[in-house]
Amino acid sequence: MTDNFIRKSFIYADSDSHFPIQNIPFGIFKSGDKRPSRACTIIGDKIIDLTVLESRGFFNDILSGNNVFKELTLNKFMSLGNNTVSQIRREIQKLFDESCNIIKDDDSLLNECLHHKSEIKMCLPVDIGNYTDFYSSKEHATNVGIMFRGKENALMPNWVHLPVAYHGRASSVIISGTDIIRPKGQTKNDDEQLPVFGPSKLLDFELETGFFISKGNNHGDPIPVNRASEHIFGMVLVNDWSARDIQKWEYVPLGPFLSKNFATSISPWIVTLDALEPFKAEKIKQDPEPLPYLRSVENHAYDILLEVKIRSEKMNEFQVISKSNFKYLYWDICQQLAHHTITGCNMQSGDLLASGTISGPDKSSFGSMLELTWRGQNPIKLTSGEERKFLQDGDEICMTGYCQGDGFKVGFGEVISKILPAKS
Amino acid sequence: MTDNFIRKSFIYADSDSHFPIQNIPFGIFKSGDKRPSRACTIIGDKIIDLTVLESRGFFNDILSGNNVFKELTLNKFMSLGNNTVSQIRREIQKLFDESCNIIKDDDSLLNECLHHKSEIKMCLPVDIGNYTDFYSSKEHATNVGIMFRGKENALMPNWVHLPVAYHGRASSVIISGTDIIRPKGQTKNDDEQLPVFGPSKLLDFELETGFFISKGNNHGDPIPVNRASEHIFGMVLVNDWSARDIQKWEYVPLGPFLSKNFATSISPWIVTLDALEPFKAEKIKQDPEPLPYLRSVENHAYDILLEVKIRSEKMNEFQVISKSNFKYLYWDICQQLAHHTITGCNMQSGDLLASGTISGPDKSSFGSMLELTWRGQNPIKLTSGEERKFLQDGDEICMTGYCQGDGFKVGFGEVISKILPAKS
Repeated sequence: MTDNFIRKSFIYADSDSHFPIQNIPFGIFKSGDKRPSRACTIIGDKIIDLTVLESRGFFNDILSGNNVFKELTLNKFMSLGNNTVSQIRREIQKLFDESCNIIKDDDSLLNECLHHKSEIKMCLPVDIGNYTDFYSSKEHATNVGIMFRGKENALMPNWVHLPVAYHGRASSVIISGTDIIRPKGQTKNDDEQLPVFGPSKLLDFELETGFFISKGNNHGDPIPVNRASEHIFGMVLVNDWSARDIQKWEYVPLGPFLSKNFATSISPWIVTLDALEPFKAEKIKQDPEPLPYLRSVENHAYDILLEVKIRSEKMNEFQVISKSNFKYLYWDICQQLAHHTITGCNMQSGDLLASGTISGPDKSSFGSMLELTWRGQNPIKLTSGEERKFLQDGDEICMTGYCQGDGFKVGFGEVISKILPAKS
Repeated sequence: MTDNFIRKSFIYADSDSHFPIQNIPFGIFKSGDKRPSRACTIIGDKIIDLTVLESRGFFNDILSGNNVFKELTLNKFMSLGNNTVSQIRREIQKLFDESCNIIKDDDSLLNECLHHKSEIKMCLPVDIGNYTDFYSSKEHATNVGIMFRGKENALMPNWVHLPVAYHGRASSVIISGTDIIRPKGQTKNDDEQLPVFGPSKLLDFELETGFFISKGNNHGDPIPVNRASEHIFGMVLVNDWSARDIQKWEYVPLGPFLSKNFATSISPWIVTLDALEPFKAEKIKQDPEPLPYLRSVENHAYDILLEVKIRSEKMNEFQVISKSNFKYLYWDICQQLAHHTITGCNMQSGDLLASGTISGPDKSSFGSMLELTWRGQNPIKLTSGEERKFLQDGDEICMTGYCQGDGFKVGFGEVISKILPAKS
């Protein structure tokens, strides 16, 4: 097989494209016609309809006639397990390699299976049965802790011993491009006696990544930490929208609820662990050493450059307000999965597990407005001359992420949404 | 229509049966043969296969040829909305009324559609997309508060203003009769420096009820409190298994996670709100008055007698250890649903919303071992001479619930499970 790093496709992808042939992520798209949504991948600006390749028999040897790409979501494909997914991805890379003539020279096939990305609409790629959100950035947990409990008690004692998490709301996970309606709810100021009802005034984003489960586990059978990666299909960007004022009033003692469940946005392309493999970063040194069930031999720290950009209604261009990195996470994806299932909790194909806000060591790498403005104390200055403590109606938030190769990128594209005013 | 209270079926149900013709709950069963699971109801000891009635055309006028009972779950039926469900239930009551000869006199039909309950196996009735657990018993919240924070700070300030809740784990909701494997996890004693890993030592039940969503709402469109009952299909008993020692160590600041997600058991029969309608209890007086979006005009306090029974391996009979009542709940099901969706969070057909532990004013009505033994300080004496602070391997917990009519009951049956030792 051609080495991933020198591979090149006959479909053009420039060096800034997130989707060269080295990537081959999976998604679900809808074309302009009335055909149902179906599976695809992407090279450069070209969407590749996988149902066309499937119906032409290119995957017969791997899928043994199983039609998985005609499904409305990727769940069935994911449930086949990572070996099958890896084989399919390699087969696609082979078929679209510049040295391969099978598709390149077949105009009718090319015409049938390729769409320019501007002609299609990406859809939620997975029917998400369960969504869990971790809290695995030490910098984020520390920042929030300092703000809410002071420097002395910033990190809770359990934090360094286990990947803290809570169950999120699966139904309100939405695809990039879907607008966010400012949520209403109960809030209470410290200096007031009674709570009030109205639109959230402290609307925030959280820069996160998430991974999808390929094959699940049986109820009662934990997934060992060093087998965990076999159950992970791939990763997406996650914007875990948060209403800080609703959160503050509701979250003791059972955790965040309405402050998080109005919407969680994800990017449309699921980037496989295979595609991320060449971009390993140094494994985080964990001190204290975790309990044996969390001791991960594999390294799943990836060097994924993450960025958050904002654009208000008065701005023409997006302005970068945070630069973070996936490698800052203290607890890795395998530890998260092992912890989640240690009680016997069962994972199902398509479950989404998110990282929690990914903040880095510097102010410029903080992953939420709460941290960037330090609870609104240090507003962000926008290029339009405006200031932001938290998000205003009309603001758009765009998150991107990519790994930098030698002359190419393996990226996630973006997750972008606009804030609409609360409904009256 | 015959009045519910004097209705009688040609299928015998004694006065203690939970399933007279006044009930007509819905469930999913599997017969001894290899046929897939399908929808049913029950009168007395007789399971009624609804696919048989459907295929004979009895529901044609209501369902307009939609085949909903052949599905593996009730989701499709539920999604038709409460009007349709009410009509189907009334049609079944008409067909099985002692005055109706259509089915009574058709031996071949009777033979095809009736099974004795001992011949079949009840299955999880719903594909549960999302599971939420409330905390709506003031007595329970107060008891737990006193134990963990002292009498002065027992109830958190938010508790009387909103129905506190957290998202639970949908994948591990299981059907009555499924054994519970004692979960392993991290725990830390107050007098120890470091956490340890092992089987939970403080395994507990929580006596709850839950309701299922029939028709959902669109993302962004809250369900108003006084339209909420239109979205509620019916109720089940819920045993929200809890590992108290895991909970104590993990739950600050993001709430319960592994301590709850190893298993949640539900009873197999979904009792409709129509069936509960004649058993309204007095509406709870809420003080302070809730914010307008939570002001419920309807009354959804039902007089449902709840019981928890235990049987250790040394006991032949179950021993009642708690008698509570659904009517004790402070926040009603419509308030719960209105609150859950006020931010625009979308409900989907088949979502489960549970009440939280239902404790009453007296010690004898507390809904968990934590409260009944007051954290283990006052162990329960069993008829076998044993004592219980929390649950031991081999213990079975059985919860039942019913409304008492004049000479009949409308009941939920039971949710029963046995604790198995942790896996080595």
